[in-house]
Amino acid sequence: MPAMSQHTLDFWFEFASTYCYPAAMRIAPLAAAAGVTVRWRPFLLGPIFKAQGWDTSPFNIYPDKGRYMWRDLERLCAALDLPFKRPDRFPQGSLLAARVATVGLDEAWGEDFVRAVYRAEFGEGRVISEPTVIGELLAGLGVDPATTLAQAQSDVTKVKLRAQTEDAQRLGIFGAPSFVVNGELFWGNDRLEQALAWTTRPAL
Amino acid sequence: MPAMSQHTLDFWFEFASTYCYPAAMRIAPLAAAAGVTVRWRPFLLGPIFKAQGWDTSPFNIYPDKGRYMWRDLERLCAALDLPFKRPDRFPQGSLLAARVATVGLDEAWGEDFVRAVYRAEFGEGRVISEPTVIGELLAGLGVDPATTLAQAQSDVTKVKLRAQTEDAQRLGIFGAPSFVVNGELFWGNDRLEQALAWTTRPAL
Repeated sequence: MPAMSQHTLDFWFEFASTYCYPAAMRIAPLAAAAGVTVRWRPFLLGPIFKAQGWDTSPFNIYPDKGRYMWRDLERLCAALDLPFKRPDRFPQGSLLAARVATVGLDEAWGEDFVRAVYRAEFGEGRVISEPTVIGELLAGLGVDPATTLAQAQSDVTKVKLRAQTEDAQRLGIFGAPSFVVNGELFWGNDRLEQALAWTTRPAL
Repeated sequence: MPAMSQHTLDFWFEFASTYCYPAAMRIAPLAAAAGVTVRWRPFLLGPIFKAQGWDTSPFNIYPDKGRYMWRDLERLCAALDLPFKRPDRFPQGSLLAARVATVGLDEAWGEDFVRAVYRAEFGEGRVISEPTVIGELLAGLGVDPATTLAQAQSDVTKVKLRAQTEDAQRLGIFGAPSFVVNGELFWGNDRLEQALAWTTRPAL
């Protein structure tokens, strides 16, 4: 095994986050090319936003910023050749998807599931808080929906996801996507390349 | 004159803004290489932030975000080989510098002055709200400080800068740096290259 494969990047994502969509679609090939192992870490921004005094997305609280974000995302998806459809609801309830991802990332289908959720949500404008939608996505990956949804709602999974969110808070994560490399935090889809490069860079 | 020189980009900057520093240092050579004419447009974020309910920088309101921003700026400056020194005060009063820039951009020394202010502020940690500091920077450019500071405080200049800030608000600008190309808004130092490319791109 080459030495570079020891390099690891933590990819912190939240299913309600728009900019996680391009990040989730881009990360695997870029990391593979850079010889970096990615740890996919779902978490919830809700508690973190609440601690900042927000009860919804800042893109809703600040309309100019929100309008800009949707246009920016549209341009970004066009440049990356990703489908884009603005969902009617924003932000969407992401708890169920995050719990299912927590299950899947311990199995072989986790990363595919994450990409499928983002594609459904921001590529097709679908409602990812609906168990039927999540079930469909699971079935599309050859994963049994009933068993998996039950496992996702188990105490083990709930506790795991909660611990993960607490980890994110401890790391000073305040938005998504975030990337952490050797304790160094990078925020935003724009920083993915820099974060990957950091795995081979000595500390500043 | 080649047709491409008709392409114009508006560069909206605020002297209190950290990410305007790398943008101001990068824009001239990148625009020249792309055959784009840049209109440098100083404005004030204060009234815009106030309308969003903020009485200081969001980097102060949200400490995790602030901590991250300073580290991110440090990394960015290192990568660009720009000097970096975090000023003791943040954000700094930027009104005087913006008024002087408004004067200078109608003359030959405006762009050099803008770069000198950002370098002093974030490269050397100096206090740019001080008239003596601004005076020194002007003298360094061979511009008479006394005459210029008087002109900067004239009603003509004040009205001009106020109108400029109102223009920014009308354009939906909510942060700095911002770039506008044919009515298309781009926010952040990270979007400079994309904004420049937009000058030759058909509408999405």
